[in-house]
This record gives sequence, C-alpha cells and structure tokens, in this order.
Amino acid sequence: MSDPINLLNKRGSTKNYDAPDSSNSVGWTQPQHLRLADDNDPLPLKCGINFAPIDVEYETYGRLNEERSNAILILHALSGDAHVAGWDSKADEYKRPWRKTRPGWWDNMVGPGKAFDTNKYFIICSNVLGSCYGTTGPSSVDPATGKPYGLRFPVVTVGDWVRLQCRLIEHLGIEKLLAVAGGSLGGQQALEWTLAYPERVGSAIILASSTHLSDLGLAFNAVARHAILNDRNFKDGNYYGDEVPDKGLSIARMLGHITYLSEESMEKKFTRKYIRGDKPKFHLGIDFEVEGYLHYQGQAFVERFDANSYLYITKAMDYYDAASWGNGDIDSACKRTKSRFLLVSFSSDWLYTPQQTRELALSLYRAKKPVSYINIQSSYGHDAFLLEGEKLKELITSFLDGGIVKDEDTA
Amino acid sequence: MSDPINLLNKRGSTKNYDAPDSSNSVGWTQPQHLRLADDNDPLPLKCGINFAPIDVEYETYGRLNEERSNAILILHALSGDAHVAGWDSKADEYKRPWRKTRPGWWDNMVGPGKAFDTNKYFIICSNVLGSCYGTTGPSSVDPATGKPYGLRFPVVTVGDWVRLQCRLIEHLGIEKLLAVAGGSLGGQQALEWTLAYPERVGSAIILASSTHLSDLGLAFNAVARHAILNDRNFKDGNYYGDEVPDKGLSIARMLGHITYLSEESMEKKFTRKYIRGDKPKFHLGIDFEVEGYLHYQGQAFVERFDANSYLYITKAMDYYDAASWGNGDIDSACKRTKSRFLLVSFSSDWLYTPQQTRELALSLYRAKKPVSYINIQSSYGHDAFLLEGEKLKELITSFLDGGIVKDEDTA
Repeated sequence: MSDPINLLNKRGSTKNYDAPDSSNSVGWTQPQHLRLADDNDPLPLKCGINFAPIDVEYETYGRLNEERSNAILILHALSGDAHVAGWDSKADEYKRPWRKTRPGWWDNMVGPGKAFDTNKYFIICSNVLGSCYGTTGPSSVDPATGKPYGLRFPVVTVGDWVRLQCRLIEHLGIEKLLAVAGGSLGGQQALEWTLAYPERVGSAIILASSTHLSDLGLAFNAVARHAILNDRNFKDGNYYGDEVPDKGLSIARMLGHITYLSEESMEKKFTRKYIRGDKPKFHLGIDFEVEGYLHYQGQAFVERFDANSYLYITKAMDYYDAASWGNGDIDSACKRTKSRFLLVSFSSDWLYTPQQTRELALSLYRAKKPVSYINIQSSYGHDAFLLEGEKLKELITSFLDGGIVKDEDTA
Repeated sequence: MSDPINLLNKRGSTKNYDAPDSSNSVGWTQPQHLRLADDNDPLPLKCGINFAPIDVEYETYGRLNEERSNAILILHALSGDAHVAGWDSKADEYKRPWRKTRPGWWDNMVGPGKAFDTNKYFIICSNVLGSCYGTTGPSSVDPATGKPYGLRFPVVTVGDWVRLQCRLIEHLGIEKLLAVAGGSLGGQQALEWTLAYPERVGSAIILASSTHLSDLGLAFNAVARHAILNDRNFKDGNYYGDEVPDKGLSIARMLGHITYLSEESMEKKFTRKYIRGDKPKFHLGIDFEVEGYLHYQGQAFVERFDANSYLYITKAMDYYDAASWGNGDIDSACKRTKSRFLLVSFSSDWLYTPQQTRELALSLYRAKKPVSYINIQSSYGHDAFLLEGEKLKELITSFLDGGIVKDEDTA
C-alpha cells in the first residue's frame, strides 16, 4: 500500500486521499458512454415528451460475477457525477481539471475493502439526465438545431432518471441489482428504484434523504433558481459560448452550502473568526471566515457546473414525492416494494431531517417491509453522508452481509 | 371603539388592524425630524470618522410625565423604521404608499391598553443611521457632492446607532429611560444601551436576540450582500435615479424571509401545496406556494427599501458583539450594566436561537444582574417577536410593573 496523497487545495488546507496505486483505491478510472435512447426508442418522460437521443456517462468498478448477482447501483446527488471513486484518467481529455486534484466524490466509501467493497461487488454509477457531466443535458447539442438545448431541454424527474438507469442496467445484462444506494437526492433515486422496479432491487441504502423535500428545502431551491434566472448573463438559458450566469450560480451554490452544513458545524469551523486580524475592517466586503468559505465554494462551483443543469436538477428534486406511487399515500406506496432497507439520517441534518427519514421508516414498517433505521449523531449536517465514512462503513457492511442492524440511534 | 380595519392585501389574504379612530390605536401619527449632528458637533463613529450632518426621523406616542420618568425607547430591526404604531398621516407626502394599507410594525404591542401602554408610557422610536426611512443614510444627499452618498457613506455600527439615539433622548430632556425594548437587531440595540449607558437605562426588554449573530446568520447576510453587490444595476452603489438593484435586493429579502420562518411554520403555512392545481407544471417557473410567497415578499420589499441600506445595516448586524465591552468576555461586559432585564426567546427561532438568548441570561446571572429569561413555545420562528403579541403582552406588562417573571420555559 502506497502513502496517501496529501494534496494542498486552493484554500491552503490539506486532505488525505488514497493514491491511485494504493491497494485501497479503485485506481485510475475512465468514463464510459452509451446511447440509451434514440429516435426509434426514445425515453418516455413524465412531462409527456418522448425524448431522444440520450447518451449516458457511467463508470463501473469491480467485476460482475458469473451469476450477475453482485451489482450495486450508486446514485449521485445534485452536483454529483458518475465518477464515484478513484482517479479520472481522462480529466485532461474531457477538460475536467478539478478531477486532477481529488478522487471521486465517494472515494472514502467505494474501493477494495471499503464499505462498498469492490473486491466483492460490481459498482455502477451513471450521471443523471439533465446534468452536465457526460449524460445528455441542457448544455448538449440539440440535433434538431445544432445548438445547445438550453431551456428547450425537457423538464425531467427522478422517475425519468431511474427509468433511464434501468436501461443501463439491462444493457449491462443485470436483471436484479443486489442493492441501490445513495444520499440526499441520490437516496431519493434509490427509493424510487424500489418503487418503480420492485423485482429488480434486492436492498436499498438510503442516506440523509426522504420521500420528499420539505417546504424549507423548496424555499432554498426557489431562491437559488431565482438568482440564476435573474443573472444578467442568463439570457433565457442561451448563454453557451458567451459569458455564463456565474453570479447567479455562485449565489445558488453558496446557499446550497449553508444547507449542507449545520449550525454546530459552522460554529466549530468558523466561530465568527475574522479572515485576517481580529477586528472589523469597516468595509462592505468580506470580513468573516464563513463569508470567505462561501465565496470560495461559490466560485469553485461555477468553474465546474452548468447553471441550466442546476435549474433542471433542483426542479426534479422539488417535484419528487414517493407518495405519488400510492396516490398521495406513502404507506400505500411502500406496499409496492420488495426490497430490504437501510435508512440512515444524521442528527444535525436540517435539509433532510432525521424526522423525515424516520417517517419513511415508519411507513415501511407499517407496510411490513424489512427496514433498519439509524440516526447517526453527527455535527456535520447534511454533508455527513459524505463525511461520516467510518460510522457508515460498519452499518453498510453489516447490512450488505445480510444483517439487520439495530433499530435506533447509534453513537 | 370602532370596528377593526379589515384589509385585503395583494396576496388576497386579510388582516385585522385597529383603525386609527379605535380606542386601542395611537391613531394618526406623523414623523418628526431633527438634526442631531452637524459640522460643529459631528457624531464620532466607531470606524474613526466624525460624521455630519445627521438628521433623524422619529415618532413618539403618549405623554412624557412631569418627572420625565415614563419614557420607553423602542428599537427597530433590520428593515424597520420609526413608525412603530398607528397610521401614518404623511404616507402620501413622504411617498410611502405601503403605509396606507397597514399600521406601524408593532401596532399590536404599542397603544392604549397594549403591552407598551401609551396611556402610561411615553414611547419613542427613531430610524437608525444608514437606513432609508428618514434618518441620514446612503440614499441621502452628501452636501459635499450634492449627490447621494452611495458607498461613500461610512460603515456604521450598533454602537453608533445607540450614541445617536442618546442625543435624541437628551434633546427630549430625558435623563434616564424607564426602559429600552426591541427584537432581533432591535434587541441588540437595547442590550448595547444597557452597556454603553448603564446610568440611563432602568430596564431592558430584549426579544429574539443575543450578544452576537451566529456563523449561520453571518452566512445568510454574506449571501444577501453578495446578491446585491453582484446585481447588474448596482454600479458600485451609484444607482440612484436609475434602475435599482432590485434583483439582488429581492434575493436578499427572500433569504431573510426563510430565516424569519421556521421549518414548522413553513410546513403549516405551505405543506408543499401547488399554487394552482395539485400537479407539477413541468416548467422552470414557480410551482409551489412557498415559492410564490418568497417571490412576493422579495418584490414587495424592493418597492420600499434601499439596497445600499441593506448592505450597511446587515454589516452593523454582523459586527455587533456585546462581549467587546469586556474585551471579548461577555461575563465581564455584563458587569457594566445597571438595568434589570427581560429576555425572551422563541422555541423555533433559528436565527437568534433560544440557546443564544439563554447564554446571555446566564452571563447576566453570573454578573448578579436582575434578569428574567423566558423561552416561549412558538412555531413562528424568528418572526414570533412580531406575532406572539398575546404571550408577550402578559410578560412585558408584568415586567414593566416591576415584577420578575418566572424564570424558565412558559406555555
């Protein structure tokens, strides 16, 4: 095993990552592409449009066994991509320079010997429809016009994403997934899989997620979209090849980061510290560390994300309501599933609260489905599903090995 | 007593207000103006500048008694003004049309027989320095240039505001205030009064407030200012007489409203209801009631507030830290005060949390000051200090009558 990579990021802090030649890493990865809908076989969308063409970017790690029974589909969240683990060998080719300084977004959870052990499981993740990381989205060229779709792109839903993912799974020759797993919006996709394709999912691991976004969550997304739509450079979404609506998108991202942290984690991280010195500078610019952090996050995001994709993906997030499988009744919806469930919430998460996850757990209980619900004590807020690797590893390993983990709050 | 005024607002809902001829109302009011700093006697600001001229807009209700011992100074919050109660008789003259459809911002608390009983007390409120409601601010004309100050306006602090208010009190011939009272940023001014002028304050009523804003609060203000500063119309603050940075200011206000509500109040108010019908419209525009509410609030605000004032006032809010009176130690700072205190927090307030108010109470206890701390169970979030009139009336009446109210959570 090689030494961990110790990378200095732009903000001057270091993080330890498993190097590509480490025995803990899936190593060098490369994105794969597949056309999953064309004019002869378009994807029927919830909005009523039959949409094509659709190309999907995905990655896989580990090996599919002969019985094709060890496949786990991982679902990414709002700003995520198919690059879950390891180091992207095509970062230069695809002009994704940020991937050169860090591994995939769940590298701490996916790899040899990790929670999602690539020595045992065949791991799949695909970028969602409407995103900007290789799967068809608003920045893709519309063959009908030869120009990027922009707002001519259809409004997509979590259900649409899952139906597209199902085509990928079929293409890979997998009839039934051993498990689906995701956090946040990824958790909602995992839930949707168990309801849309009950025969095709053995187990579901749903982290920091729920059946629907709260009104508070809707409110944040509304302000984020308002900021993008009103950016001077937005131009009805036709900004490609020109100045992009970076101000609006950075506001959206700053807001997002507020919701990913918790009051407690903010206080631990920043404690009203001034960026330089310990006194007000008596100006209207940035004084406090928390301001500097948010500005940095906003700026970094506009270098890697498309504003139109942010609009479409947050809309899918807003619209999702698992209860629609039961005509508005979640208990009834839950009767459809044939999966076993591991639900995990995090005590300080206020975007998808423990209470919301618990309500899903209770609906599954009432529907007599095997479900384990754990609320992990964590100060990390919503981000905990990415950061609490140690605690999650124990739970996920045990759950995938067939165990029902204990039912309530754990340390 | 006349019937209450039943006004239909733009959003189609009605509210009951005491009509100007009601025996519960202070009636028709009019703003008063006073020059409180000129070149011979400028106001020394914390930033180091000696600033003049300063004109202040204020209102008073009730009568100052012969002993001049019944004066209560009310302090307003971020977007407030001197018009605390009653109906503005000068709304047309001063081009403040929004005041024609509603009384002052604390009309439910200030008037004959109300918590702040104008039959007994002489009530004063002045607009803060840097605001846009009659007191000198960035939209005022700089005599040196003949143009509005814009960003040439100096950065002001809560301490500056209180020093200016002290000049007003002196002008009114009041040596000692019976009480100071305010919620949110107004509560911080009340606290500052007790520390800056211990001899001049008998009692302090501090609602939904604390010694300093949390990192979470700093984060929201940072995004709000970022939105204003990056509005295409902002032009370094020189937008007067031209298109104003309404998009940025509306984003700031939408964010503000998120922090004034609570998850619970949002859920009660909106419950993911669609604006029309009960289905997604599959577009990128407004679908949910909570979105419509925030857009309305954002739009209404730009018609009545100045973006530069929003920058300056949120900066004052960020900078405020009562512990600076004790060189960073709040316990030590609290030893200065000679007031008695009523501190009230609201259980669902996440902008100034009950925990923060409680910490101030504990510091005052340790400094052996008479303090009553009450956490009111309320689902209204931070807005509760404006809405929980019934519960507050009982506490405030008892406190002003000299009683020490019970020490802990009340119903």
